[in-house]
Amino acid sequence: MKSEENMESKGVSRRQMMIGTGVLAAGAAMAHLGGLLKTVEAKEGPTEKWPWPYEKLDPAKTAEIAYEEWYRVFCGAAVINSVVSQLREKVGEPYTSFPVDSFVFLEGGMVGWGMTCGSNTGAAIIANLIIGPRIAGSTAGHQISEDMFQWYSEASMPVFVPKNPKVTTELVKTTADSPLCHVSVGKWMKASGFPIGSPERKDRCARVAASNAYHLVELLNAWKDGKYEPTSSHAPVKEYGITAQMNCMECHGDDVPAAPMAKK
Amino acid sequence: MKSEENMESKGVSRRQMMIGTGVLAAGAAMAHLGGLLKTVEAKEGPTEKWPWPYEKLDPAKTAEIAYEEWYRVFCGAAVINSVVSQLREKVGEPYTSFPVDSFVFLEGGMVGWGMTCGSNTGAAIIANLIIGPRIAGSTAGHQISEDMFQWYSEASMPVFVPKNPKVTTELVKTTADSPLCHVSVGKWMKASGFPIGSPERKDRCARVAASNAYHLVELLNAWKDGKYEPTSSHAPVKEYGITAQMNCMECHGDDVPAAPMAKK
Repeated sequence: MKSEENMESKGVSRRQMMIGTGVLAAGAAMAHLGGLLKTVEAKEGPTEKWPWPYEKLDPAKTAEIAYEEWYRVFCGAAVINSVVSQLREKVGEPYTSFPVDSFVFLEGGMVGWGMTCGSNTGAAIIANLIIGPRIAGSTAGHQISEDMFQWYSEASMPVFVPKNPKVTTELVKTTADSPLCHVSVGKWMKASGFPIGSPERKDRCARVAASNAYHLVELLNAWKDGKYEPTSSHAPVKEYGITAQMNCMECHGDDVPAAPMAKK
Repeated sequence: MKSEENMESKGVSRRQMMIGTGVLAAGAAMAHLGGLLKTVEAKEGPTEKWPWPYEKLDPAKTAEIAYEEWYRVFCGAAVINSVVSQLREKVGEPYTSFPVDSFVFLEGGMVGWGMTCGSNTGAAIIANLIIGPRIAGSTAGHQISEDMFQWYSEASMPVFVPKNPKVTTELVKTTADSPLCHVSVGKWMKASGFPIGSPERKDRCARVAASNAYHLVELLNAWKDGKYEPTSSHAPVKEYGITAQMNCMECHGDDVPAAPMAKK
Protein backbone atom coordinates (compact mmCIF):
# COMPACT_ATOMS: atom_id res chain seq x y z
CA MET A 1 0.00 0.00 0.00
CA LYS A 2 2.64 2.45 1.06
CA SER A 3 4.98 1.82 -1.86
CA GLU A 4 2.11 2.27 -4.31
CA GLU A 5 1.30 5.61 -2.78
CA ASN A 6 4.93 6.66 -3.14
CA MET A 7 5.11 5.52 -6.71
CA GLU A 8 1.98 7.39 -7.58
CA SER A 9 3.40 10.51 -6.02
CA LYS A 10 6.38 10.15 -8.37
CA GLY A 11 4.03 10.01 -11.37
CA VAL A 12 4.32 6.24 -11.93
CA SER A 13 0.85 4.80 -11.56
CA ARG A 14 0.05 1.17 -10.85
CA ARG A 15 -1.48 0.99 -14.32
CA GLN A 16 1.75 2.15 -15.96
CA MET A 17 3.67 -0.44 -13.94
CA MET A 18 1.33 -3.20 -15.15
CA ILE A 19 1.64 -2.06 -18.77
CA GLY A 20 5.39 -2.06 -18.27
CA THR A 21 5.54 -5.64 -17.03
CA GLY A 22 2.73 -7.09 -19.15
CA VAL A 23 3.25 -5.71 -22.63
CA LEU A 24 6.92 -4.93 -23.02
CA ALA A 25 8.90 -7.94 -21.94
CA ALA A 26 12.44 -7.24 -23.07
CA GLY A 27 15.58 -5.19 -22.59
CA ALA A 28 15.15 -1.46 -22.57
CA ALA A 29 11.69 -1.34 -21.04
CA MET A 30 12.61 -3.63 -18.15
CA ALA A 31 15.82 -1.70 -17.55
CA HIS A 32 13.79 1.50 -17.41
CA LEU A 33 11.35 -0.09 -15.00
CA GLY A 34 14.22 -1.40 -12.92
CA GLY A 35 15.65 2.08 -12.74
CA LEU A 36 12.35 3.49 -11.55
CA LEU A 37 12.00 0.80 -8.91
CA LYS A 38 15.53 1.50 -7.68
CA THR A 39 14.75 5.20 -7.38
CA VAL A 40 11.60 4.47 -5.42
CA GLU A 41 13.51 2.11 -3.14
CA ALA A 42 16.25 4.67 -2.46
CA LYS A 43 13.57 7.19 -1.54
CA GLU A 44 11.83 4.73 0.79
CA GLY A 45 14.89 3.14 2.30
CA PRO A 46 15.59 -0.56 1.71
CA THR A 47 14.76 -1.41 5.35
CA GLU A 48 11.29 0.16 5.18
CA LYS A 49 9.56 -3.05 4.24
CA TRP A 50 7.66 -4.76 7.03
CA PRO A 51 7.59 -7.06 8.85
CA TRP A 52 11.33 -7.56 9.23
CA PRO A 53 12.25 -11.25 9.34
CA TYR A 54 11.88 -12.41 12.94
CA GLU A 55 12.92 -15.64 14.60
CA LYS A 56 11.55 -16.49 18.03
CA LEU A 57 13.93 -15.74 20.88
CA ASP A 58 14.31 -17.15 24.37
CA PRO A 59 12.84 -14.59 26.83
CA ALA A 60 15.20 -15.51 29.71
CA LYS A 61 18.31 -15.38 27.50
CA THR A 62 17.17 -12.03 26.09
CA ALA A 63 16.64 -10.68 29.60
CA GLU A 64 20.15 -11.77 30.66
CA ILE A 65 21.62 -9.92 27.65
CA ALA A 66 19.60 -6.79 28.49
CA TYR A 67 20.82 -6.95 32.08
CA GLU A 68 24.48 -7.12 31.03
CA GLU A 69 24.03 -4.51 28.28
CA TRP A 70 22.54 -2.04 30.77
CA TYR A 71 26.03 -1.64 32.25
CA ARG A 72 27.39 -0.75 28.78
CA VAL A 73 24.63 1.26 27.05
CA PHE A 74 21.93 1.78 29.73
CA CYS A 75 18.21 1.06 29.69
CA GLY A 76 16.88 1.95 26.23
CA ALA A 77 19.77 0.68 24.14
CA ALA A 78 20.06 -2.39 26.41
CA VAL A 79 16.50 -3.48 25.58
CA ILE A 80 17.06 -2.72 21.88
CA ASN A 81 20.35 -4.62 21.71
CA SER A 82 19.08 -7.60 23.70
CA VAL A 83 16.90 -8.35 20.68
CA VAL A 84 19.00 -6.90 17.84
CA SER A 85 22.26 -8.62 18.83
CA GLN A 86 20.58 -12.04 18.66
CA LEU A 87 18.80 -11.30 15.38
CA ARG A 88 22.07 -10.08 13.84
CA GLU A 89 23.36 -13.60 14.48
CA LYS A 90 20.21 -15.48 13.45
CA VAL A 91 18.98 -13.28 10.57
CA GLY A 92 21.63 -10.67 9.64
CA GLU A 93 20.27 -7.66 7.76
CA PRO A 94 18.35 -5.42 8.33
CA TYR A 95 19.35 -5.86 12.00
CA THR A 96 23.07 -5.55 11.28
CA SER A 97 22.60 -2.03 9.90
CA PHE A 98 20.45 -0.75 12.76
CA PRO A 99 22.63 1.60 14.86
CA VAL A 100 21.73 0.33 18.32
CA ASP A 101 24.24 2.36 20.27
CA SER A 102 22.76 5.65 19.00
CA PHE A 103 20.02 5.03 21.55
CA VAL A 104 22.15 5.42 24.67
CA PHE A 105 20.48 8.85 25.01
CA LEU A 106 17.24 7.13 26.12
CA GLU A 107 18.92 6.70 29.54
CA GLY A 108 17.25 8.30 32.55
CA GLY A 109 14.05 9.01 30.62
CA MET A 110 16.09 10.67 27.83
CA VAL A 111 19.39 12.32 28.84
CA GLY A 112 18.31 12.25 32.50
CA TRP A 113 15.12 14.30 32.08
CA GLY A 114 12.96 11.58 33.68
CA MET A 115 10.47 11.31 30.82
CA THR A 116 9.55 7.96 29.20
CA CYS A 117 11.57 5.18 30.86
CA GLY A 118 14.16 4.08 28.30
CA SER A 119 13.20 0.45 28.82
CA ASN A 120 9.74 1.36 27.52
CA THR A 121 10.99 3.44 24.60
CA GLY A 122 13.44 0.68 23.69
CA ALA A 123 10.69 -1.95 23.71
CA ALA A 124 8.43 0.22 21.53
CA ILE A 125 11.27 0.88 19.08
CA ILE A 126 11.89 -2.86 18.69
CA ALA A 127 8.19 -3.69 18.22
CA ASN A 128 7.83 -1.01 15.55
CA LEU A 129 11.11 -1.84 13.81
CA ILE A 130 10.14 -5.49 13.42
CA ILE A 131 6.39 -5.28 12.81
CA GLY A 132 6.43 -1.81 11.26
CA PRO A 133 4.39 1.35 11.83
CA ARG A 134 0.60 1.29 11.88
CA ILE A 135 0.54 3.18 8.56
CA ALA A 136 2.28 0.24 6.85
CA GLY A 137 -0.39 -2.40 7.23
CA SER A 138 -0.24 -3.90 10.75
CA THR A 139 -1.21 -2.26 14.01
CA ALA A 140 0.49 -4.95 16.15
CA GLY A 141 3.69 -2.92 16.69
CA HIS A 142 1.64 0.03 17.89
CA GLN A 143 -0.43 -2.25 20.15
CA ILE A 144 2.58 -4.06 21.60
CA SER A 145 3.98 -0.61 22.53
CA GLU A 146 0.78 0.17 24.43
CA ASP A 147 0.79 -3.27 26.06
CA MET A 148 4.39 -2.76 27.20
CA PHE A 149 3.62 0.67 28.70
CA GLN A 150 0.63 -0.69 30.60
CA TRP A 151 2.38 -3.88 31.71
CA TYR A 152 5.35 -1.83 32.97
CA SER A 153 3.05 0.56 34.84
CA GLU A 154 1.24 -2.26 36.63
CA ALA A 155 4.20 -4.59 37.30
CA SER A 156 5.91 -5.00 40.66
CA MET A 157 9.37 -4.01 39.41
CA PRO A 158 11.92 -5.32 38.95
CA VAL A 159 10.31 -8.61 37.90
CA PHE A 160 13.38 -10.37 36.48
CA VAL A 161 16.22 -11.61 38.67
CA PRO A 162 19.43 -12.30 36.73
CA LYS A 163 21.43 -15.48 37.26
CA ASN A 164 24.53 -13.61 38.43
CA PRO A 165 23.34 -10.26 39.79
CA LYS A 166 25.97 -7.58 40.36
CA VAL A 167 24.11 -6.58 43.55
CA THR A 168 23.37 -9.68 45.62
CA THR A 169 21.11 -8.22 48.32
CA GLU A 170 17.37 -8.52 47.69
CA LEU A 171 15.93 -5.42 46.04
CA VAL A 172 12.64 -3.81 47.04
CA LYS A 173 9.89 -4.01 44.40
CA THR A 174 7.54 -1.14 43.59
CA THR A 175 4.68 -0.45 41.21
CA ALA A 176 5.11 2.74 39.20
CA ASP A 177 1.53 3.25 37.98
CA SER A 178 3.25 5.16 35.17
CA PRO A 179 5.60 4.45 32.25
CA LEU A 180 7.74 7.49 33.13
CA CYS A 181 11.30 7.17 34.45
CA HIS A 182 10.92 9.91 37.09
CA VAL A 183 7.80 8.33 38.61
CA SER A 184 9.09 4.76 38.40
CA VAL A 185 12.55 5.51 39.79
CA GLY A 186 11.21 8.01 42.33
CA LYS A 187 8.79 5.54 43.90
CA TRP A 188 11.48 2.88 44.07
CA MET A 189 13.98 5.30 45.65
CA LYS A 190 11.39 6.34 48.22
CA ALA A 191 10.58 2.74 49.13
CA SER A 192 14.18 1.56 49.20
CA GLY A 193 15.94 4.64 50.54
CA PHE A 194 18.74 4.24 48.01
CA PRO A 195 20.01 7.32 46.16
CA ILE A 196 20.16 7.62 42.37
CA GLY A 197 23.91 6.94 42.18
CA SER A 198 23.83 3.79 44.36
CA PRO A 199 24.74 0.35 42.98
CA GLU A 200 21.33 -0.85 44.17
CA ARG A 201 19.40 1.74 42.10
CA LYS A 202 21.53 0.98 39.06
CA ASP A 203 20.98 -2.75 39.42
CA ARG A 204 17.26 -2.17 39.90
CA CYS A 205 17.16 -0.32 36.57
CA ALA A 206 19.26 -3.00 34.84
CA ARG A 207 16.70 -5.56 36.07
CA VAL A 208 13.82 -3.38 34.86
CA ALA A 209 15.42 -3.34 31.39
CA ALA A 210 15.77 -7.13 31.61
CA SER A 211 12.12 -7.47 32.73
CA ASN A 212 10.95 -5.41 29.76
CA ALA A 213 13.13 -7.38 27.33
CA TYR A 214 11.65 -10.63 28.69
CA HIS A 215 8.03 -9.54 28.27
CA LEU A 216 8.69 -7.90 24.89
CA VAL A 217 10.02 -11.19 23.51
CA GLU A 218 7.00 -13.05 24.91
CA LEU A 219 4.75 -10.68 22.92
CA LEU A 220 6.90 -10.85 19.76
CA ASN A 221 6.97 -14.66 19.92
CA ALA A 222 3.17 -14.74 20.25
CA TRP A 223 2.89 -12.37 17.28
CA LYS A 224 5.22 -14.61 15.24
CA ASP A 225 2.96 -17.56 16.06
CA GLY A 226 -0.14 -15.60 15.01
CA LYS A 227 -1.38 -15.73 18.61
CA TYR A 228 -0.82 -12.13 19.75
CA GLU A 229 -3.84 -10.47 21.33
CA PRO A 230 -3.63 -6.80 22.44
CA THR A 231 -4.34 -6.33 26.15
CA SER A 232 -3.90 -2.60 26.86
CA SER A 233 -7.15 -0.91 27.79
CA HIS A 234 -5.84 2.67 28.03
CA ALA A 235 -7.45 4.95 25.41
CA PRO A 236 -6.68 8.50 26.61
CA VAL A 237 -7.79 10.52 23.57
CA LYS A 238 -11.13 8.74 23.56
CA GLU A 239 -11.59 8.81 27.34
CA TYR A 240 -10.11 12.18 28.30
CA GLY A 241 -9.91 14.12 25.03
CA ILE A 242 -6.13 14.47 25.34
CA THR A 243 -2.97 12.39 25.05
CA ALA A 244 -2.27 11.24 28.61
CA GLN A 245 -1.24 8.60 31.07
CA MET A 246 -3.86 6.81 33.15
CA ASN A 247 -3.01 8.43 36.49
CA CYS A 248 -4.45 11.96 36.12
CA MET A 249 -4.87 12.64 39.85
CA GLU A 250 -1.29 11.75 40.73
CA CYS A 251 -0.18 15.08 39.22
CA HIS A 252 -3.44 17.02 39.06
CA GLY A 253 -4.87 16.02 42.47
CA ASP A 254 -8.62 16.62 42.70
CA ASP A 255 -8.39 19.43 40.16
CA VAL A 256 -8.15 17.48 36.90
CA PRO A 257 -8.84 19.97 34.08
CA ALA A 258 -11.41 19.04 31.44
CA ALA A 259 -10.05 19.12 27.89
CA PRO A 260 -11.98 21.12 25.29
CA MET A 261 -14.15 18.56 23.50
CA ALA A 262 -15.47 18.46 19.96
CA LYS A 263 -19.08 19.55 19.54
CA LYS A 264 -21.32 16.55 18.98
CA MET B 1 37.56 3.55 22.08
CA LYS B 2 34.38 1.60 21.73
CA SER B 3 35.59 -0.69 18.94
CA GLU B 4 38.75 -1.43 20.92
CA GLU B 5 36.69 -2.50 23.89
CA ASN B 6 34.61 -4.78 21.68
CA MET B 7 37.64 -6.30 20.09
CA GLU B 8 39.22 -6.96 23.45
CA SER B 9 36.06 -8.67 24.60
CA LYS B 10 36.38 -11.00 21.62
CA GLY B 11 39.94 -11.89 22.64
CA VAL B 12 41.65 -9.74 20.02
CA SER B 13 43.71 -7.18 21.85
CA ARG B 14 44.99 -3.94 20.41
CA ARG B 15 48.50 -5.37 20.78
CA GLN B 16 47.64 -8.43 18.69
CA MET B 17 46.15 -6.13 16.04
CA MET B 18 49.36 -4.09 15.89
CA ILE B 19 51.53 -7.21 15.61
CA GLY B 20 49.23 -8.36 12.83
CA THR B 21 49.57 -5.20 10.77
CA GLY B 22 53.20 -4.39 11.56
CA VAL B 23 55.05 -7.68 11.31
CA LEU B 24 53.13 -9.88 8.89
CA ALA B 25 52.52 -7.94 5.72
CA ALA B 26 51.31 -10.52 3.24
CA GLY B 27 48.49 -12.84 2.15
CA ALA B 28 47.27 -15.25 4.76
CA ALA B 29 47.87 -13.08 7.78
CA MET B 30 46.06 -10.09 6.29
CA ALA B 31 43.20 -12.29 5.16
CA HIS B 32 42.90 -13.65 8.68
CA LEU B 33 42.94 -10.11 10.06
CA GLY B 34 40.34 -9.06 7.50
CA GLY B 35 38.17 -11.93 8.64
CA LEU B 36 38.48 -10.86 12.24
CA LEU B 37 37.66 -7.26 11.39
CA LYS B 38 34.64 -8.38 9.42
CA THR B 39 33.41 -10.41 12.40
CA VAL B 40 33.88 -7.45 14.70
CA GLU B 41 32.06 -5.19 12.24
CA ALA B 42 29.11 -7.58 11.95
CA LYS B 43 28.88 -7.63 15.74
CA GLU B 44 29.03 -3.83 15.93
CA GLY B 45 26.92 -3.04 12.92
CA PRO B 46 28.40 -1.20 9.94
CA THR B 47 26.47 1.99 10.76
CA GLU B 48 27.85 2.18 14.31
CA LYS B 49 30.74 4.43 13.39
CA TRP B 50 30.36 8.06 14.30
CA PRO B 51 29.95 10.78 13.25
CA TRP B 52 27.85 9.89 10.22
CA PRO B 53 28.70 12.05 7.22
CA TYR B 54 26.66 15.25 7.52
CA GLU B 55 26.13 18.06 5.05
CA LYS B 56 24.66 21.32 6.25
CA LEU B 57 20.95 21.71 5.54
CA ASP B 58 18.70 24.72 5.10
CA PRO B 59 16.66 25.14 8.33
CA ALA B 60 13.62 26.66 6.61
CA LYS B 61 13.52 23.98 3.91
CA THR B 62 13.87 21.28 6.59
CA ALA B 63 11.02 22.82 8.58
CA GLU B 64 8.77 22.85 5.50
CA ILE B 65 9.49 19.14 4.94
CA ALA B 66 8.73 18.36 8.60
CA TYR B 67 5.45 20.29 8.35
CA GLU B 68 4.33 18.30 5.31
CA GLU B 69 5.59 14.99 6.71
CA TRP B 70 3.58 15.50 9.90
CA TYR B 71 0.44 14.81 7.87
CA ARG B 72 1.94 11.49 6.70
CA VAL B 73 3.92 10.12 9.67
CA PHE B 74 3.20 12.53 12.56
CA CYS B 75 5.53 14.43 14.87
CA GLY B 76 8.47 12.17 15.69
CA ALA B 77 8.96 10.55 12.30
CA ALA B 78 8.30 13.93 10.61
CA VAL B 79 11.28 15.51 12.40
CA ILE B 80 13.42 12.44 11.68
CA ASN B 81 12.50 12.32 8.00
CA SER B 82 12.87 16.08 7.47
CA VAL B 83 16.60 15.49 7.97
CA VAL B 84 17.01 11.90 6.74
CA SER B 85 15.18 12.41 3.42
CA GLN B 86 17.54 15.24 2.49
CA LEU B 87 20.67 13.35 3.59
CA ARG B 88 19.56 10.29 1.61
CA GLU B 89 19.76 12.55 -1.48
CA LYS B 90 22.97 14.38 -0.51
CA VAL B 91 24.92 11.56 1.19
CA GLY B 92 23.15 8.20 0.67
CA GLU B 93 24.13 5.54 3.22
CA PRO B 94 23.86 5.16 6.18
CA TYR B 95 20.77 7.38 5.92
CA THR B 96 19.16 5.25 3.20
CA SER B 97 19.07 2.22 5.51
CA PHE B 98 17.60 4.02 8.50
CA PRO B 99 13.95 2.93 8.82
CA VAL B 100 12.36 6.33 9.40
CA ASP B 101 8.74 5.23 9.22
CA SER B 102 9.21 2.82 12.16
CA PHE B 103 9.05 5.91 14.34
CA VAL B 104 5.41 6.80 13.65
CA PHE B 105 4.72 5.39 17.15
CA LEU B 106 6.32 8.50 18.69
CA GLU B 107 3.05 10.31 17.89
CA GLY B 108 1.10 11.80 20.77
CA GLY B 109 3.99 11.36 23.21
CA MET B 110 4.31 7.68 22.15
CA VAL B 111 1.12 5.93 20.96
CA GLY B 112 -0.99 8.72 22.48
CA TRP B 113 0.25 8.35 26.07
CA GLY B 114 1.28 12.02 26.28
CA MET B 115 4.87 11.36 27.37
CA THR B 116 7.89 12.91 25.59
CA CYS B 117 6.65 15.02 22.67
CA GLY B 118 7.57 13.12 19.51
CA SER B 119 9.12 16.25 18.03
CA ASN B 120 11.61 16.16 20.91
CA THR B 121 12.29 12.43 20.68
CA GLY B 122 12.72 12.74 16.92
CA ALA B 123 15.22 15.58 17.30
CA ALA B 124 17.22 13.63 19.89
CA ILE B 125 17.25 10.53 17.69
CA ILE B 126 18.66 12.54 14.78
CA ALA B 127 21.34 14.23 16.90
CA ASN B 128 22.47 10.89 18.31
CA LEU B 129 22.31 9.07 14.99
CA ILE B 130 24.55 11.62 13.31
CA ILE B 131 26.95 12.57 16.10
CA GLY B 132 26.74 9.26 17.95
CA PRO B 133 26.19 8.30 21.59
CA ARG B 134 28.23 9.87 24.38
CA ILE B 135 30.00 6.53 24.93
CA ALA B 136 31.49 6.73 21.41
CA GLY B 137 33.68 9.78 21.81
CA SER B 138 31.56 12.95 21.48
CA THR B 139 29.00 14.30 23.93
CA ALA B 140 27.55 16.79 21.41
CA GLY B 141 24.62 14.52 20.43
CA HIS B 142 23.67 14.12 24.09
CA GLN B 143 24.01 17.88 24.64
CA ILE B 144 22.01 18.82 21.54
CA SER B 145 19.22 16.58 22.89
CA GLU B 146 19.22 18.51 26.16
CA ASP B 147 19.34 21.83 24.32
CA MET B 148 16.35 20.81 22.20
CA PHE B 149 14.30 19.76 25.25
CA GLN B 150 15.05 23.04 27.03
CA TRP B 151 14.52 25.20 23.93
CA TYR B 152 11.17 23.47 23.28
CA SER B 153 10.10 23.95 26.90
CA GLU B 154 10.83 27.68 26.83
CA ALA B 155 9.66 28.51 23.29
CA SER B 156 6.39 30.24 22.46
CA MET B 157 5.06 27.45 20.27
CA PRO B 158 4.53 27.02 17.43
CA VAL B 159 7.48 29.18 16.33
CA PHE B 160 7.56 28.26 12.64
CA VAL B 161 4.87 29.37 10.19
CA PRO B 162 4.85 27.34 6.95
CA LYS B 163 4.60 29.04 3.56
CA ASN B 164 1.33 27.33 2.70
CA PRO B 165 -0.36 26.40 5.97
CA LYS B 166 -3.26 23.97 5.83
CA VAL B 167 -5.00 26.04 8.52
CA THR B 168 -4.94 29.71 7.53
CA THR B 169 -6.30 31.34 10.70
CA GLU B 170 -3.69 32.57 13.17
CA LEU B 171 -2.88 30.03 15.86
CA VAL B 172 -2.47 30.89 19.55
CA LYS B 173 1.07 30.41 20.90
CA THR B 174 1.81 28.91 24.31
CA THR B 175 4.87 28.04 26.38
CA ALA B 176 4.87 24.46 27.67
CA ASP B 177 7.54 24.76 30.41
CA SER B 178 7.95 21.03 29.74
CA PRO B 179 9.13 18.73 26.93
CA LEU B 180 6.11 16.43 27.45
CA CYS B 181 3.33 16.08 24.87
CA HIS B 182 0.50 16.09 27.44
CA VAL B 183 1.67 19.32 29.09
CA SER B 184 2.53 21.07 25.81
CA VAL B 185 -0.67 20.11 24.00
CA GLY B 186 -2.82 20.56 27.13
CA LYS B 187 -1.71 24.17 27.69
CA TRP B 188 -2.24 24.99 24.03
CA MET B 189 -5.71 23.40 24.03
CA LYS B 190 -6.67 25.35 27.15
CA ALA B 191 -5.48 28.66 25.67
CA SER B 192 -7.00 28.06 22.25
CA GLY B 193 -10.16 26.18 23.18
CA PHE B 194 -9.64 23.75 20.31
CA PRO B 195 -10.16 20.01 20.94
CA ILE B 196 -7.53 17.36 20.22
CA GLY B 197 -9.16 16.24 16.96
CA SER B 198 -9.50 19.74 15.48
CA PRO B 199 -7.63 20.81 12.32
CA GLU B 200 -6.18 23.69 14.36
CA ARG B 201 -4.63 21.40 17.00
CA LYS B 202 -3.22 19.14 14.30
CA ASP B 203 -1.72 22.08 12.42
CA ARG B 204 -0.30 23.44 15.67
CA CYS B 205 1.51 20.13 16.22
CA ALA B 206 2.71 20.01 12.59
CA ARG B 207 4.17 23.49 13.12
CA VAL B 208 5.79 22.38 16.40
CA ALA B 209 7.48 19.53 14.51
CA ALA B 210 8.61 22.07 11.90
CA SER B 211 9.89 24.43 14.62
CA ASN B 212 11.93 21.63 16.18
CA ALA B 213 13.32 20.55 12.81
CA TYR B 214 14.39 24.15 12.13
CA HIS B 215 16.22 24.56 15.42
CA LEU B 216 17.74 21.08 15.27
CA VAL B 217 19.33 21.88 11.89
CA GLU B 218 20.66 25.18 13.25
CA LEU B 219 22.43 23.22 16.01
CA LEU B 220 23.68 20.49 13.64
CA ASN B 221 25.02 23.11 11.21
CA ALA B 222 26.86 24.86 14.06
CA TRP B 223 28.30 21.51 15.14
CA LYS B 224 29.42 20.80 11.56
CA ASP B 225 31.20 24.18 11.54
CA GLY B 226 32.88 23.40 14.87
CA LYS B 227 30.95 26.26 16.47
CA TYR B 228 28.40 24.36 18.56
CA GLU B 229 28.22 25.44 22.21
CA PRO B 230 25.83 23.61 24.59
CA THR B 231 23.26 25.92 26.20
CA SER B 232 21.03 23.72 28.39
CA SER B 233 21.43 24.45 32.07
CA HIS B 234 19.16 21.70 33.41
CA ALA B 235 21.08 19.17 35.55
CA PRO B 236 18.39 17.25 37.46
CA VAL B 237 20.48 14.42 38.93
CA LYS B 238 23.01 16.90 40.31
CA GLU B 239 20.40 19.44 41.47
CA TYR B 240 17.58 17.22 42.70
CA GLY B 241 19.14 13.78 43.09
CA ILE B 242 16.72 12.26 40.56
CA THR B 243 16.04 12.23 36.83
CA ALA B 244 13.45 14.97 36.31
CA GLN B 245 12.09 17.89 34.38
CA MET B 246 12.67 21.43 35.64
CA ASN B 247 9.10 22.15 36.75
CA CYS B 248 8.77 20.11 39.98
CA MET B 249 5.96 22.19 41.48
CA GLU B 250 3.72 21.93 38.44
CA CYS B 251 2.95 18.31 39.41
CA HIS B 252 4.04 18.20 43.06
CA GLY B 253 2.68 21.59 44.18
CA ASP B 254 4.31 22.80 47.41
CA ASP B 255 4.98 19.24 48.48
CA VAL B 256 8.05 18.37 46.39
CA PRO B 257 9.54 15.19 47.88
CA ALA B 258 13.26 15.14 48.67
CA ALA B 259 15.14 12.30 46.96
CA PRO B 260 17.34 10.07 49.14
CA MET B 261 20.85 11.49 48.75
CA ALA B 262 24.24 9.83 48.93
CA LYS B 263 26.10 10.25 52.22
CA LYS B 264 28.90 12.82 51.85
